Amino acid sequence: MKQETEAKIRDFFEQNDHFAAQNRILIEEIDEGYAKASLIITKEHLNGAGVAHGGAIFLLADFALALASNSYGTLALGINNSISYLNAAQENEHIYAVAKEVEKNHKLASYTVTINGKDDRVIAIMQGMVYRKDKQFI
Amino acid sequence: MKQETEAKIRDFFEQNDHFAAQNRILIEEIDEGYAKASLIITKEHLNGAGVAHGGAIFLLADFALALASNSYGTLALGINNSISYLNAAQENEHIYAVAKEVEKNHKLASYTVTINGKDDRVIAIMQGMVYRKDKQFI
Amino acid sequence: MKQETEAKIRDFFEQNDHFAAQNRILIEEIDEGYAKASLIITKEHLNGAGVAHGGAIFLLADFALALASNSYGTLALGINNSISYLNAAQENEHIYAVAKEVEKNHKLASYTVTINGKDDRVIAIMQGMVYRKDKQFI
Amino acid sequence: MKQETEAKIRDFFEQNDHFAAQNRILIEEIDEGYAKASLIITKEHLNGAGVAHGGAIFLLADFALALASNSYGTLALGINNSISYLNAAQENEHIYAVAKEVEKNHKLASYTVTINGKDDRVIAIMQGMVYRKDKQFI
Repeated sequence: MKQETEAKIRDFFEQNDHFAAQNRILIEEIDEGYAKASLIITKEHLNGAGVAHGGAIFLLADFALALASNSYGTLALGINNSISYLNAAQENEHIYAVAKEVEKNHKLASYTVTINGKDDRVIAIMQGMVYRKDKQFI
Repeated sequence: MKQETEAKIRDFFEQNDHFAAQNRILIEEIDEGYAKASLIITKEHLNGAGVAHGGAIFLLADFALALASNSYGTLALGINNSISYLNAAQENEHIYAVAKEVEKNHKLASYTVTINGKDDRVIAIMQGMVYRKDKQFI
Repeated sequence: MKQETEAKIRDFFEQNDHFAAQNRILIEEIDEGYAKASLIITKEHLNGAGVAHGGAIFLLADFALALASNSYGTLALGINNSISYLNAAQENEHIYAVAKEVEKNHKLASYTVTINGKDDRVIAIMQGMVYRKDKQFI
Repeated sequence: MKQETEAKIRDFFEQNDHFAAQNRILIEEIDEGYAKASLIITKEHLNGAGVAHGGAIFLLADFALALASNSYGTLALGINNSISYLNAAQENEHIYAVAKEVEKNHKLASYTVTINGKDDRVIAIMQGMVYRKDKQFI
């Protein structure tokens, strides 16, 4: 992937994905059909049980998936996600989501996202599908 | 469900679920194995395509599921969620999530969550499973 | 739905869905965006634990979903299914799957399938999505 | 894994998993938290569109998952599966499912299953969760 394209996609998401920005999700890497994002768990990301909220972990994974599926410069919209939670993430932990493309057809594409925390513990795993529009967004 | 129990659960979630509060999720109703929550979509909930973020819709649905599955006063932890996005929700739209219990065993329980917006459009549908601990939290 | 259309769809599936026929899945009802199918659990449907195989329950649910999503006479292909198993079904039990359309757009549609057994016990619940082709098949 | 244990698990499944045997699913490999199974698609595995039935692909994947999750000799029961279909499999094609453990706790474990066909095309991908009983079955 050209550095210029990566920069454009990064800028687009940093300026327009308000929900991810508001919740302090960070872009780490973007490549064709691949992306990595991260999140430092603070008090505002906790649930009633005092650990990282499922919704915060989902958002991190979904954002990595959005970066990976939009990495071709044409709009991809999430249509289905399935997430399994495997280990709790704690306050102050820095967690990472890596999205990898499994398959891409003309209209649909599928991704696996793995979310890891400290000592490479698996926090969660997500499988996601997107619908691909012809529309260029960058 | 006793009004007193409902008030305790409502208080517990309003005080301790920081991620839901931070993102302005509102509790509407709680009953045994049932809950309704809502969200007014503002700019901060939008994604790069200018509509409500999948992560915000997921959070709303997940929160309704958490209320419903914790309505017995014992701790229930989400282990798996599958969400399908069916229609986009727009800025200023008031959307609702209703979680209903499908089955509850000793250790596991399953819920269907429907998310609706203006004119009863279906925004998304979620299927979720929880693991039930013996621990009382209220 | 016209009785003639129902008969055509029923004939099409009974003659062409070899895997469902081979495993003794029965068509009960077909309407627009709706279908009911059933299965009598015999020894050949059991798993190693001596109860109905998850694959047999999935097949029954998937078949009801296929009938419902193909009820308009244009081809619909399954792209994603999520199933949760809630109670075991026993040998000789007659189980039913009811598929209901949640939403249908130009290209995608979503269905909820509930599988029930004796005394209306919920055996499983499935959420499925299909991709809709323009091709007529009847 | 001891060869003797593998042989016992293989025997158990070959003798007791009637639904897999009936549909000609083959065991290829079993190791701790890992398994591979295969299926030669014949006419009896086809759906109305003339390609491998989603239910047959699911069964193959689910069976690999069952082998992997039962590889410790204690009973594991499937509670949730999410499958995405990515490419059609054709009559006479020999397809393979490989199940790998993502995480295993005391009561729950999670697996990713990849189903591949000719020329390593990805046919489908599945994410599955099991509930682990204390009961020894071999």
